[in-house]
Amino acid sequence: MNRDSIQQLLEQVAGGKMDIESAMSELVHLPFAELAHSTLDLHRELRQGSPEIIFGENKTPQQISDNLIRIHAAHGKALATRVGADKAAEILATWSPGLPAPSYQPSARCLTLGLGQAASPADGERYVAVVTAGTSDLAISDEAALTLQFLGHRFVQINDVGVAGLHRLFPHLEVLQKATCIIAIAGMEGALPSVLGGLLPGPIVAVPTSTGYGIARDGETALHAMLTSCASGISVVNIDNGFGAALFAHALLRQF
Amino acid sequence: MNRDSIQQLLEQVAGGKMDIESAMSELVHLPFAELAHSTLDLHRELRQGSPEIIFGENKTPQQISDNLIRIHAAHGKALATRVGADKAAEILATWSPGLPAPSYQPSARCLTLGLGQAASPADGERYVAVVTAGTSDLAISDEAALTLQFLGHRFVQINDVGVAGLHRLFPHLEVLQKATCIIAIAGMEGALPSVLGGLLPGPIVAVPTSTGYGIARDGETALHAMLTSCASGISVVNIDNGFGAALFAHALLRQF
Amino acid sequence: MNRDSIQQLLEQVAGGKMDIESAMSELVHLPFAELAHSTLDLHRELRQGSPEIIFGENKTPQQISDNLIRIHAAHGKALATRVGADKAAEILATWSPGLPAPSYQPSARCLTLGLGQAASPADGERYVAVVTAGTSDLAISDEAALTLQFLGHRFVQINDVGVAGLHRLFPHLEVLQKATCIIAIAGMEGALPSVLGGLLPGPIVAVPTSTGYGIARDGETALHAMLTSCASGISVVNIDNGFGAALFAHALLRQF
Amino acid sequence: MNRDSIQQLLEQVAGGKMDIESAMSELVHLPFAELAHSTLDLHRELRQGSPEIIFGENKTPQQISDNLIRIHAAHGKALATRVGADKAAEILATWSPGLPAPSYQPSARCLTLGLGQAASPADGERYVAVVTAGTSDLAISDEAALTLQFLGHRFVQINDVGVAGLHRLFPHLEVLQKATCIIAIAGMEGALPSVLGGLLPGPIVAVPTSTGYGIARDGETALHAMLTSCASGISVVNIDNGFGAALFAHALLRQF
Amino acid sequence: MNRDSIQQLLEQVAGGKMDIESAMSELVHLPFAELAHSTLDLHRELRQGSPEIIFGENKTPQQISDNLIRIHAAHGKALATRVGADKAAEILATWSPGLPAPSYQPSARCLTLGLGQAASPADGERYVAVVTAGTSDLAISDEAALTLQFLGHRFVQINDVGVAGLHRLFPHLEVLQKATCIIAIAGMEGALPSVLGGLLPGPIVAVPTSTGYGIARDGETALHAMLTSCASGISVVNIDNGFGAALFAHALLRQF
Amino acid sequence: MNRDSIQQLLEQVAGGKMDIESAMSELVHLPFAELAHSTLDLHRELRQGSPEIIFGENKTPQQISDNLIRIHAAHGKALATRVGADKAAEILATWSPGLPAPSYQPSARCLTLGLGQAASPADGERYVAVVTAGTSDLAISDEAALTLQFLGHRFVQINDVGVAGLHRLFPHLEVLQKATCIIAIAGMEGALPSVLGGLLPGPIVAVPTSTGYGIARDGETALHAMLTSCASGISVVNIDNGFGAALFAHALLRQF
Amino acid sequence: MNRDSIQQLLEQVAGGKMDIESAMSELVHLPFAELAHSTLDLHRELRQGSPEIIFGENKTPQQISDNLIRIHAAHGKALATRVGADKAAEILATWSPGLPAPSYQPSARCLTLGLGQAASPADGERYVAVVTAGTSDLAISDEAALTLQFLGHRFVQINDVGVAGLHRLFPHLEVLQKATCIIAIAGMEGALPSVLGGLLPGPIVAVPTSTGYGIARDGETALHAMLTSCASGISVVNIDNGFGAALFAHALLRQF
Amino acid sequence: MNRDSIQQLLEQVAGGKMDIESAMSELVHLPFAELAHSTLDLHRELRQGSPEIIFGENKTPQQISDNLIRIHAAHGKALATRVGADKAAEILATWSPGLPAPSYQPSARCLTLGLGQAASPADGERYVAVVTAGTSDLAISDEAALTLQFLGHRFVQINDVGVAGLHRLFPHLEVLQKATCIIAIAGMEGALPSVLGGLLPGPIVAVPTSTGYGIARDGETALHAMLTSCASGISVVNIDNGFGAALFAHALLRQF
Repeated sequence: MNRDSIQQLLEQVAGGKMDIESAMSELVHLPFAELAHSTLDLHRELRQGSPEIIFGENKTPQQISDNLIRIHAAHGKALATRVGADKAAEILATWSPGLPAPSYQPSARCLTLGLGQAASPADGERYVAVVTAGTSDLAISDEAALTLQFLGHRFVQINDVGVAGLHRLFPHLEVLQKATCIIAIAGMEGALPSVLGGLLPGPIVAVPTSTGYGIARDGETALHAMLTSCASGISVVNIDNGFGAALFAHALLRQF
Repeated sequence: MNRDSIQQLLEQVAGGKMDIESAMSELVHLPFAELAHSTLDLHRELRQGSPEIIFGENKTPQQISDNLIRIHAAHGKALATRVGADKAAEILATWSPGLPAPSYQPSARCLTLGLGQAASPADGERYVAVVTAGTSDLAISDEAALTLQFLGHRFVQINDVGVAGLHRLFPHLEVLQKATCIIAIAGMEGALPSVLGGLLPGPIVAVPTSTGYGIARDGETALHAMLTSCASGISVVNIDNGFGAALFAHALLRQF
Repeated sequence: MNRDSIQQLLEQVAGGKMDIESAMSELVHLPFAELAHSTLDLHRELRQGSPEIIFGENKTPQQISDNLIRIHAAHGKALATRVGADKAAEILATWSPGLPAPSYQPSARCLTLGLGQAASPADGERYVAVVTAGTSDLAISDEAALTLQFLGHRFVQINDVGVAGLHRLFPHLEVLQKATCIIAIAGMEGALPSVLGGLLPGPIVAVPTSTGYGIARDGETALHAMLTSCASGISVVNIDNGFGAALFAHALLRQF
Repeated sequence: MNRDSIQQLLEQVAGGKMDIESAMSELVHLPFAELAHSTLDLHRELRQGSPEIIFGENKTPQQISDNLIRIHAAHGKALATRVGADKAAEILATWSPGLPAPSYQPSARCLTLGLGQAASPADGERYVAVVTAGTSDLAISDEAALTLQFLGHRFVQINDVGVAGLHRLFPHLEVLQKATCIIAIAGMEGALPSVLGGLLPGPIVAVPTSTGYGIARDGETALHAMLTSCASGISVVNIDNGFGAALFAHALLRQF
Repeated sequence: MNRDSIQQLLEQVAGGKMDIESAMSELVHLPFAELAHSTLDLHRELRQGSPEIIFGENKTPQQISDNLIRIHAAHGKALATRVGADKAAEILATWSPGLPAPSYQPSARCLTLGLGQAASPADGERYVAVVTAGTSDLAISDEAALTLQFLGHRFVQINDVGVAGLHRLFPHLEVLQKATCIIAIAGMEGALPSVLGGLLPGPIVAVPTSTGYGIARDGETALHAMLTSCASGISVVNIDNGFGAALFAHALLRQF
Repeated sequence: MNRDSIQQLLEQVAGGKMDIESAMSELVHLPFAELAHSTLDLHRELRQGSPEIIFGENKTPQQISDNLIRIHAAHGKALATRVGADKAAEILATWSPGLPAPSYQPSARCLTLGLGQAASPADGERYVAVVTAGTSDLAISDEAALTLQFLGHRFVQINDVGVAGLHRLFPHLEVLQKATCIIAIAGMEGALPSVLGGLLPGPIVAVPTSTGYGIARDGETALHAMLTSCASGISVVNIDNGFGAALFAHALLRQF
Repeated sequence: MNRDSIQQLLEQVAGGKMDIESAMSELVHLPFAELAHSTLDLHRELRQGSPEIIFGENKTPQQISDNLIRIHAAHGKALATRVGADKAAEILATWSPGLPAPSYQPSARCLTLGLGQAASPADGERYVAVVTAGTSDLAISDEAALTLQFLGHRFVQINDVGVAGLHRLFPHLEVLQKATCIIAIAGMEGALPSVLGGLLPGPIVAVPTSTGYGIARDGETALHAMLTSCASGISVVNIDNGFGAALFAHALLRQF
Repeated sequence: MNRDSIQQLLEQVAGGKMDIESAMSELVHLPFAELAHSTLDLHRELRQGSPEIIFGENKTPQQISDNLIRIHAAHGKALATRVGADKAAEILATWSPGLPAPSYQPSARCLTLGLGQAASPADGERYVAVVTAGTSDLAISDEAALTLQFLGHRFVQINDVGVAGLHRLFPHLEVLQKATCIIAIAGMEGALPSVLGGLLPGPIVAVPTSTGYGIARDGETALHAMLTSCASGISVVNIDNGFGAALFAHALLRQF
């Protein structure tokens, strides 16, 4: 599209339909102006394969509603993350009756429009394994899973297999070994990705969580522990950032 | 091989060549005992697709030499990272004359045996783009590149394209867009991965470096900035960990 | 005025109207006593070109009301920053009916008296460009803008042009290049000032915000990233300190 | 120049000397390719009013020499900062005899070519006041001063006037009040900018230094103290960053 | 039990009742599959001598109730720690009438089923001494004591004997000297374990608490102080972790 | 008293009224037993010249009431610090009608019994100067002042004389110079003690406060800045610890 | 002995051999004076079961020599920890020829006199298992082992069984399960104690090491990760404190 | 003197010997100009009772020599602190033969001129007790002691009485109780001031030291522990700041 615009302009100059001065002026600004004309959402999908996703934390209910409606209109689906239960209730209560209403997943704290069905990966289908160390990490796992579902990927969720009872992990080893990407979620000391990194070949995206107290420092200890893992094939995203891990997995999976 | 050992044992039991008691005793320990007998290196390659790589920082010259020889004997190649110039000189000076000697890459601080040739990616071949923000990040880029070469992957290195002069980045956009994985290396404020994450679809493994002074805190500011990036498709490894980024890229690339 | 007081005193001594002892006593204390007699506000305006501005965060509604009234009486205008919505409502509800009432700007969390009209900069007029990386930084931008308006400066606000979609920045480059001073506001990794510093000649006052979660540490990561920027012409104020950035711009602009 | 290149290209298209396809291809890359062809230095001067300045800390003597020669050839002057005494000696010892040799200022740790004479500001001339709290901050003051001199600005240096003996500051108040910009340099508790900010109208660029021990934490305490100053008109740069403060002052002064 | 399963399998192979291929497949997974079949709780008791204890902080009332019932059914007792008063009230209010109800200890913030009686240590019986520096550390002491009681150990509690009035400690020295293990609980500067470590032979498990304000940093200062104690025989657990200290004492005491 | 007890005991032994065995047993424990018999409060006054003062923050209303009554009974006066308005109201509402009721000072957050009158220092009387940088530090100043009053010392309070308007300090210099001890209270960058330390002969007890936001870090920046002050005669207490500064001044003043 | 001294004194008073006044004076000081007369070493052994051990880090060679000689004379053995190779060489070179010379263990950085033989634990004998995650933790393991040997305890050392290759741990499970106490040593993310805590009945004394780089922060990340372990039966000592872990094990083992 | 200058000036105006304009000009600057004319040292002694003391850490040998000579000429004595052994040797080697040479105290790292004799406090004389927790804190104790001697105060030094063997403290209690001020020096967990604060009435100036390793963080843990002490009458100076503690004691003692 960008190339087309330039081509048209050059054809106008070559055909004498546009003088050099004004063509020049337009050319200096074109790549940016053009982007400015198009909506943000359309461009993001072209560039990165996903519509813009709304970060709900610092937005008002009205802003979230407006964004959901506009993105849904352009893409047929929309997602807002980090929307607390109260804010979601307010959004749903004031939703325009004529429009398709979003559904709210409380554990993932997400509002979605046009999310579609989740389905287990069929034989040979690529999938992401989303693993948690403990049940208190489930919300982050659900945020990652919902984001993957929104972006059209298959996934399996494996919960509560942390290092305090390592044997719980072993029945899942085959499913983990076959995953194209593993999202490993853990709070406290954050040792799960290290253990997985020692056992599995795959790329592991580690997500530290704010589970724990005292010197767990709201996830900072798990974050730093994951970054210094002695195992290989591990990279790390921000604390409680299940959404970011899913987006990274998306960047990886869309290449196949 | 592991499966083979078990099969042999069961055949011996089935053939009456081994009584149940001693088979049982061996089976309880076999997977581990066998691993204990065999060298570590062989198993790592089966499990993760790469021989064990030597972390040279806290090892004596003698320990590094021994490990290089043993791993090279098993795999036909060996790599030791984080070997300073003085330690490398001592290793080379005392190397057994009868053995093939390692070569030392001072900028990457690596010793290698059987490294082979680096080659540019041919058309359609998958590759990793290793990008630095400044010339002072080159050592980390070289460590990543050498590790990729050791693991048999193609790569391109793009240097000194940080945000202080963003225009330097644009001529490389096409090469970056086609890369299967991008390793983005930056110190100081570590803004390069954010900029790349906004422009590119690919998975970006961000490597903070200890470049900078004062509140750069030996790379901690870059590390934390990268983890809080507002762009998508980014995950992060430890400060100055070019090696770890390359291993993560390897985990990703070996799936194609 | 200070010089005048001293001159009058010396004339009284020279004219025999004051004995040396009491002149001496007054002279020792005069510069301070005089300041103690005059109101704080009047002196601040002489010294720094602005009336004292009220920091509302740790003050009671009564204290804020009293200060607003007193400063407005002296200067014809008054400003209180960091006044939450509840506190503002209480101040307005208990305001003396006979006095001109302040108006409240909820997004900027400011109360003002005698603020006057904001106007876009005419051709050739100096102005400050107040730029944010994301919509969640708008409150800080509004605080800066209102402070500039209060101090009589022109400004333009440009919002949501952070590095996650850098192309959104380019249409504004000309406006940014012509600004006498740029206030660049960003949370999370705080990369916006670095990008602006690489593109623009102007002095950039960077304002980190507490936008973000996890290792964003309520703005500390953005703060430290901005301080270690590889770009030039950047200096930094405290987290969420839109007010302080505006005052710095004021110190700069009043010299023209 | 950039505009000229585009104009020439359009004229070639309009004149039929270039077909649309190849013009289009060139236009997509032109602004960047052109920058890539031209030397970095020339462009930086157009964009920001100063040639690129070499950060010497992580560069080899050879790299610094090469950069000095190339920048001096283009601009008639060149500056490298953060060059230690030993590295400077090595550079000077191996300098090509046929070329004009740089001179080394040990206290500022800078190498310069074509620096020219420093001169006191004449009456009415704009200048920067570079103030230190203690004698141990002199190196940073000298780095700032030399950078200002290199960029063609006037300055005065005032030393050792920190808050431990505030009366030492007062004789300099008039010079400080008339300065267009003040660079205030202090280590330990970093209180000097707060005191100046309370007394002076001007914009104050505060530079924390690593002077001090224990909980001074190599300048971090001074840095954070300056950022939380209760006085107005203050912004802050990184620890020991006299160079950055001078560049900020340059961005400010070049607008007059 | 694990050995029995393997023996049966080998007997089947030796007896021709199972072919080698399927035996092999089962053997690879058996040790883990078997663990997966058994319930978590039963296995924990075999392995570590205590049923699993429920961490109540991030669990819903329903989850806590379910876990209490299931663990009580298997072991005849159950314990949930870190259950706030409101959550406990909700659990008790919705408890199934037909089931034995848990009792709530508000100071220890624990729910228990089948806790049994606490009894003072008889002459010659081993016991743990649980010591606090101040009355504000009592909740942590009570959590440790209740956990010890749940695990069947004797203990004495000694309160408010911190270093601000060291003489209060001396009447308890004999009881402290005879304890098999000492749990020393202190906030603020956390000096109590150091003083005890200098006076007593026993192993001291130090528990820092979040008592204090300002630079006490919610227990971090006490934690770090305890870790750097100049006295001997001291090890440390996380801030406010009375439960963890009791479990460590249990690991020690069950060996007698 | 302690010596008397020992003397009596020895006289009983010498007089045959006590056998050696039981005397020995008593002697081993006497100094501590005796302390255990006496109330804590009486001993503290003998040892340090003040009754025990109640730290109200982690205590229940009932505990505070009990302690106030018991200490008041022993000493004729009692003080509880860090008692929030709600807790104080609850204490006062449930106070036994027959007992003298405590009075509550909301700004100092203190409950007192038998406090007595505050009086300005007469000519020649020793006093403490309690100085604040800003009005938001007043609560800490009031806590210090009330504690001094409770301990029977004279004091003057000087408010809002921080470095943002240094001239406000000068009229108070004479009062400050004559004080036996200065308590200097400041938040944000905490520069006030440095300025006082440069002007006054001291000693100065610096109290950092949690006033400020962002990188002020709830007083940590002020704390560290005060500890690295370049001025002399300054020592520091914990953040917001007006009480501790008053106790230190008490330890100093009671020696005259 | 202490009780004996008091008994003798009382007998002297009862027997009229000592007057009350001088007995009283002696009694007031006796427990301390007696300690002051006796050497420190003798008392430490009575109180805690080990002679004082010399911390060599901040001591001169002369001080270490003197202490070794004095402690060896009293106890027949002596140990100095944290003695670097250079300092040890200087001590040995200047050792008095007539005295038994200490031997130096470079990996443990310890000097010993009268250390005796290490012996493997016989069947049924209690022992400590000293386990490391990697070869770079060996120095700390050797310090712990030597200290245990010095204190007369049996131990086994198991090296390089960290989570990057968990299978290496399993052959040692039986030895680990039978140990009375486990010292688990690990750097980087410090996950080894968590894994052991999930598999073993404990108790486990975790020792973080300074192995690692970047955000490993010289062991702080491992320390904090160990303190937040989700597994049970774990307590922690300071970074690189193999000596402290051994002393804690000693306090535990001497009770059997 | 200052008052005299003003008086003279006023007399000149009253006597017609000076016109009003020039008197006014002089008066505006007089207090500062006068201070600028007089040497810094003379004024410091008037203001704070001690000549300026040289902080040697960031000064060249030449600068230290010059300062020592100038201050000694004015006051008959001079002191430079934090002068390393090498720098001291260079200063002494290049000292002008005609001048009285300074003497160097290596343990205190101080150079002095005209120090005079230290003497024990006679009966009834006021003194400072300088107490250390361990022998590795001796250098800081010696720095404090030498500074006290230089300022003309009496002191006693008590060493190695830390909490690891509290009984070592008790023989010194009487000397400690009679001291006018106690300087308590400790590294590691820094518990000594807390213990002293619980036992003694006096004001205690706590000095944390950088003794210790790992999480001792070069004295930061001791510093923070001392600031959160539960005992009363304690204030704190910077890490290793024996000099600052002595100056604070001086500010206190000079009032008697």
